[in-house]
Amino acid sequence: MTLDSARELLAGPLSVVHLGLEDVIQGARAAGVPVARVDFQPPAGGDPGRMHMLSRLKCPELAAAVGEANQKALGRLLAVRPHLVGVGVARDEVPGMQEGLFLHAGPPIEFERMSGPLRGAVIGGLLLERMAKTPEEAQKLAAAGKVRFEPCHHHNCVGPMAGLVTPSMPVWIIEDRAETPGVARRTYCTLNEGLGKVLRYGAYAPEVLERLEFMGEVLGPALAEALQAAGPIDLKMLMAQALQMGDEGHNRNRAGTSLLFRRLAPALVRLGRDPGQLARVLEFIDSNDHFFLNLSMPMAKCMLLAAEGVELSSMLTVMARNGTDFGIQLSCMPGRWFVGPAQPVEGLYFPGFSEKDANPDIGDSTIMETAGIGGFAMAAAPAIVQFVGGSSGDALETTRRMAAITIGRNPGWSIPQLDFAGAPTGIDLIRSVELNLLPAINTGIAHREPGIGQVGAGLTRPPWECFHAAFEAFAQHCEQHSITN
Amino acid sequence: MTLDSARELLAGPLSVVHLGLEDVIQGARAAGVPVARVDFQPPAGGDPGRMHMLSRLKCPELAAAVGEANQKALGRLLAVRPHLVGVGVARDEVPGMQEGLFLHAGPPIEFERMSGPLRGAVIGGLLLERMAKTPEEAQKLAAAGKVRFEPCHHHNCVGPMAGLVTPSMPVWIIEDRAETPGVARRTYCTLNEGLGKVLRYGAYAPEVLERLEFMGEVLGPALAEALQAAGPIDLKMLMAQALQMGDEGHNRNRAGTSLLFRRLAPALVRLGRDPGQLARVLEFIDSNDHFFLNLSMPMAKCMLLAAEGVELSSMLTVMARNGTDFGIQLSCMPGRWFVGPAQPVEGLYFPGFSEKDANPDIGDSTIMETAGIGGFAMAAAPAIVQFVGGSSGDALETTRRMAAITIGRNPGWSIPQLDFAGAPTGIDLIRSVELNLLPAINTGIAHREPGIGQVGAGLTRPPWECFHAAFEAFAQHCEQHSITN
Repeated sequence: MTLDSARELLAGPLSVVHLGLEDVIQGARAAGVPVARVDFQPPAGGDPGRMHMLSRLKCPELAAAVGEANQKALGRLLAVRPHLVGVGVARDEVPGMQEGLFLHAGPPIEFERMSGPLRGAVIGGLLLERMAKTPEEAQKLAAAGKVRFEPCHHHNCVGPMAGLVTPSMPVWIIEDRAETPGVARRTYCTLNEGLGKVLRYGAYAPEVLERLEFMGEVLGPALAEALQAAGPIDLKMLMAQALQMGDEGHNRNRAGTSLLFRRLAPALVRLGRDPGQLARVLEFIDSNDHFFLNLSMPMAKCMLLAAEGVELSSMLTVMARNGTDFGIQLSCMPGRWFVGPAQPVEGLYFPGFSEKDANPDIGDSTIMETAGIGGFAMAAAPAIVQFVGGSSGDALETTRRMAAITIGRNPGWSIPQLDFAGAPTGIDLIRSVELNLLPAINTGIAHREPGIGQVGAGLTRPPWECFHAAFEAFAQHCEQHSITN
Repeated sequence: MTLDSARELLAGPLSVVHLGLEDVIQGARAAGVPVARVDFQPPAGGDPGRMHMLSRLKCPELAAAVGEANQKALGRLLAVRPHLVGVGVARDEVPGMQEGLFLHAGPPIEFERMSGPLRGAVIGGLLLERMAKTPEEAQKLAAAGKVRFEPCHHHNCVGPMAGLVTPSMPVWIIEDRAETPGVARRTYCTLNEGLGKVLRYGAYAPEVLERLEFMGEVLGPALAEALQAAGPIDLKMLMAQALQMGDEGHNRNRAGTSLLFRRLAPALVRLGRDPGQLARVLEFIDSNDHFFLNLSMPMAKCMLLAAEGVELSSMLTVMARNGTDFGIQLSCMPGRWFVGPAQPVEGLYFPGFSEKDANPDIGDSTIMETAGIGGFAMAAAPAIVQFVGGSSGDALETTRRMAAITIGRNPGWSIPQLDFAGAPTGIDLIRSVELNLLPAINTGIAHREPGIGQVGAGLTRPPWECFHAAFEAFAQHCEQHSITN
């Protein structure tokens, strides 16, 4: 029941309106007194320690300083002009990439704790890099520590689902064109493989590896050459158009993919390559409505990188999952992970699969929600409810609710369904904890076993553990700041 | 004021609620009695003749027969499976097309009564066909009757704005694949020229003619060859996707154009043509978000043709304007035009233009609204309000209102914003007259002088004259039917 409907009831012959714990009202219920329950939760879930911290954060001086810091972080994010500038090979482009180093989605994790789909992707990566000849050999190598693992996020990279980046993979190169070219901030992501059995969902069958080889040998070089000729593509502008065409940018990317295809096709044609090979490149892109996701993710990362390192800012700059843990980072403490258990995903399953097949939440694609789209822009994508469940009203409501925990709006990404209001952007850790409201996330669902692939799509949320841990660290950060200043 | 708010007022100390003509209430007003006006109009605008006809049409037997006829007409429309099957040249493909015959949008009209943009297009057509060397010579030829004019609709054709079809122009060929190929119903439309100075808006400058020559010599043949290789394209399916991507199919066609581009590009590439020429073809399509309109219009015509000739059906099968007159046709009287004056368009103008530059409503593109999209599917395209004015709430409301004058819904074209309800489809003349509610139309605005082009976009409605004339004819049709049966 909402407070409004409670008010209505109060106009009638009601005796008790209860806003607290269920236990407290049992006596009244037992006495036969009519009881109306109100959906109310005390701030910070009622935890005395966090409520105390909240009250300290509410002192006017500190609140003003934090508010200013958050506006600064959001302003930096909004000022970024992310452009697609090229395609290269991970080992040549990604800072710190080396032979024997594999990047993965989410916070740091050792091989033993990796979930099925991430283990599957690692096996596929070892086969692709010809470090192993069989899945069994690959598994042994990985377990024996013959390959090093680091998060994509430690290398200005992001990756959907397993998010595996190995040295030979082609990567998109995104650059902030608001900065000086040459010294500008760059981010990276592999190219999207398509649907069905794919490495990012933990599959490593021969067809998966053949496709990755085509991407490395044909697709990547063709795109690199086309982009060199056709110049940078403004991704923020492209995303703005996609939001007006029913994409929310995480689970629905049909418009973004279509607009990108329109931009790339003439440039690809001008290369004058073999028509059969060129047609295969175009058909590869056309066959996969998520092709744009691997561009919009590093676009979002490029924007969020700019927001890192603002002292006293409680804005989230990273949300990422490795399939075992969900990790977040705060603007004021760049590089420091706060983790909790990856959550199950509620959604719709492909025929033949159900919840018991599902791996917990996985992938760096939550960078979209961190940047104010995906679940935060659900209102722009009413058609998505077909894939994740719910009604078009739920889609509007999700965006409205997310505005309660965000620092501002992105005027460059307006949502027609909300009369062109900007997407709610910049997740404020404090508001989230205070309102007991976690970010809404749209995502795909991977099978929990290695080697299988995608089994569905749906909605999920981060675990409270990482938000509460970050909140405590943030409170300490503020204390430290007060002492120093 | 709505009836609901009137009811609220009735609970207060109000004296008079008035539902009729303003004059009637003057006495009460003069006496100082508080008066609340209700937005209420008597059926059929209160005209005694039409109210009498309405009451006859309401007699149970006739009403049931008309209802059944309308369901039959709608059922036929919904059963059509319109596919793009090829591109040819008008003189070879369009039934009845001959040298010296020009087709135009809307109901029949002689040159003298033609509006500026249509006259401009005729001049351009004569130059394109090399029947005249200068605009002045062309004007003289047309005035001297050296070219015959017939409506596109008389040749299973449709054309946006001026809608000019001359013998040498390339045309899309659409076929109903629910019928037997070879004998199946076919419809036609020229290829969309793009934006700015274009023939369909009455421009005939050298750049306009050069573009038309490129379309005839390069674009048309390339598309013809690509379609021959890549097979028919299901347009109803493509339109369904576009409606989920923010198109309403009349004034917003970015999604349809993007999806078509994705389908055509690989096939075009496989032709192995000169890369420069091929890139120009792709860039031509990519540069024009309305490219798909000239495919969706003959798709709609193909569907509506199937609904023609159902005795007792009051469903509209044609709405079309030539810039001077607005004409409609009914299912039960195929080929018979009912006309009234083309109306002004309320909308937003390009910089430097205003209402005084605008030609009245023009073009066959109202075939979209006749088939249940365009203005009827506004809810699917909230972003369109940027171009035609209004709010996203207005867009939802327009679709809801149009459902009141339509026979049913198209389950194949669902609108995510309305929880996947089908687009309201099949305009019922009787309901429109009874409810005093005219179809909502989205459209472009042409300059009123020949030779200039587009000056804006907006919303309009048909004139009541053609609806009332059709209503009287329909009542007679019913009388005749009663006598015969």
